[in-house]
Amino acid sequence: MTITAEIPKTGTGATPIDRLHALVAADMAETERMIHGRMGSAVSLIPDLAKHLVDSGGKRLRPLLTLAAAKACGASGGAHIKLAAAVEFVHTATLLHDDVVDASALRRGKLAANIVWGNKPSILVGDFLFSRAFELMVETGDIGVLGIIARASSVIAEGEVMQLKSANNLATTEEHYLKVVSAKTAALFAASAEAGAAVAGASASLVSAFHDYAHNLGIAFQLVDDTLDYSGREAQMGKSVGDDFREAKVTLPVILAYARADEEARRFWSRTIEAGTQGDGDLARAIAHVQDSGAIRETRRRAQHYADVACASLRKVPNAEIRGALIDVAEFCVSRGY
Amino acid sequence: MTITAEIPKTGTGATPIDRLHALVAADMAETERMIHGRMGSAVSLIPDLAKHLVDSGGKRLRPLLTLAAAKACGASGGAHIKLAAAVEFVHTATLLHDDVVDASALRRGKLAANIVWGNKPSILVGDFLFSRAFELMVETGDIGVLGIIARASSVIAEGEVMQLKSANNLATTEEHYLKVVSAKTAALFAASAEAGAAVAGASASLVSAFHDYAHNLGIAFQLVDDTLDYSGREAQMGKSVGDDFREAKVTLPVILAYARADEEARRFWSRTIEAGTQGDGDLARAIAHVQDSGAIRETRRRAQHYADVACASLRKVPNAEIRGALIDVAEFCVSRGY
Repeated sequence: MTITAEIPKTGTGATPIDRLHALVAADMAETERMIHGRMGSAVSLIPDLAKHLVDSGGKRLRPLLTLAAAKACGASGGAHIKLAAAVEFVHTATLLHDDVVDASALRRGKLAANIVWGNKPSILVGDFLFSRAFELMVETGDIGVLGIIARASSVIAEGEVMQLKSANNLATTEEHYLKVVSAKTAALFAASAEAGAAVAGASASLVSAFHDYAHNLGIAFQLVDDTLDYSGREAQMGKSVGDDFREAKVTLPVILAYARADEEARRFWSRTIEAGTQGDGDLARAIAHVQDSGAIRETRRRAQHYADVACASLRKVPNAEIRGALIDVAEFCVSRGY
Repeated sequence: MTITAEIPKTGTGATPIDRLHALVAADMAETERMIHGRMGSAVSLIPDLAKHLVDSGGKRLRPLLTLAAAKACGASGGAHIKLAAAVEFVHTATLLHDDVVDASALRRGKLAANIVWGNKPSILVGDFLFSRAFELMVETGDIGVLGIIARASSVIAEGEVMQLKSANNLATTEEHYLKVVSAKTAALFAASAEAGAAVAGASASLVSAFHDYAHNLGIAFQLVDDTLDYSGREAQMGKSVGDDFREAKVTLPVILAYARADEEARRFWSRTIEAGTQGDGDLARAIAHVQDSGAIRETRRRAQHYADVACASLRKVPNAEIRGALIDVAEFCVSRGY
């Protein structure tokens, strides 16, 4: 599955993401109004479909990064709000297209839009939201931030195509896999934070610090997401466990498990991933293989590394409150169990 | 079928489109180099798939409008070249997504990319080209033209969704149909010419003249395209005759034929378009109904009206050579039989 980076609320109290939200609460409320205001169209199917996804309980991690970076860099005026809404639109557009590409059934605990409305409207509403994102960015008047997001969007598409090509391929290397993650997930995390700092007029080194933080956070987040597909609890995740396996995606848990597999396990992976022949009980067996091989633990250790690098990038950030909250978010993203 | 606005060369000599090409030949050659240079990616499937469509003999009508408007308005520097490449990328992206949405088999006389590579790469490469278009526009440094194209892109997506909703619906009015055409086709024609004038620093009235010309040209072009689906010769068009009928699209020829249909013909349209039940011989019968009812002739008359309005918009254009060529292009777009 492709990361949603949206963590459903649980009954166990505020998470570090909630606390970061609280630090930019007023800006986030404005961003929400902007998102809902600008996804409108006289063609009612567009807001209906967009609303299905936009109102499905996502945590707005990317606009949160934009707003946090903007606040830490002393943003004023409304450009950072438009930018935050724009990155959420870009993200929503990629989710709509992802779900068509992956033929997903669930997204954030609801039926995916492609299931409810079909593939055609999902593709076209994705295109609409993507275009609307650029319209919003034009309104900021800042062509520099527009370039940051446009570049990230190209890279995301490259990452998605790379991922298509590594499906069914057990020869996929860890290095190749990290390139995919860096492109399909980390690029938009990085661009969201970088653009937030840039639109606030931050120095090049501060802009770069936010880029580096969010890029590494994005990798950590995706790695953990990939472990959850072999270990998470469906109800908490709001999406199906085992999607990656069923789609024969070769994610890091599989790469590591396969590297340590004995003859019999290798035959299992060849049949289920390379040949794509899966039957009853295979998902349970895949989960057992991944867990017993230590691949989950090792993938999380990789994620911890990227979270550490992310946090180290924040040294230059002057706003201690934001800095502390971002560090907590990075730690939480690694330790989360959903 | 959705318009390609690409007219294959015939053996009968230069068309008015060829003559317009000749007036901006050097700029077009640079645009071609830009298009080929910027559709590259380390992910080889992307240029492979993009090249399939980009090199398939399209006439580059949209970048031609950009370059012609830019030249007539005295453009210098290279921004108009980047802009012309960008509008071709936006167009190519919409074709890729259209062909997935319509499940098209042919595009410009070749197998459509969705048939050769599948739907997933077509969606993602469309996203890539769309993003790359915005990157190119960012490089022009002109946020105004970026806004023109971003707005057009949103409108195109709205038009495509509107069209989805009018499929199978014989109650679709001519007015509604014109809204669809205006959005899905004319918006990018208009934006391509308008942005070309704007990037050259033209006056507001000249920018608006180019917008109006190309908007009306786009409507005329689409109306003629819609007649060709019931009358064109497949080999000349490079796409299948009867696609619109098979997809149960309610285009103007059908709206007009249905309005004049007798009881029996109405039952035919209800079965084939509303119920979507089609069998052998139905396409031939549909073509006969459309032609015998005079709907083709009347649709072409509507197209002539829009071409006339287009040409009248050009009065203020100072460059007589470009102005004359654009008028000839409008006339040709209405009279073409392929």
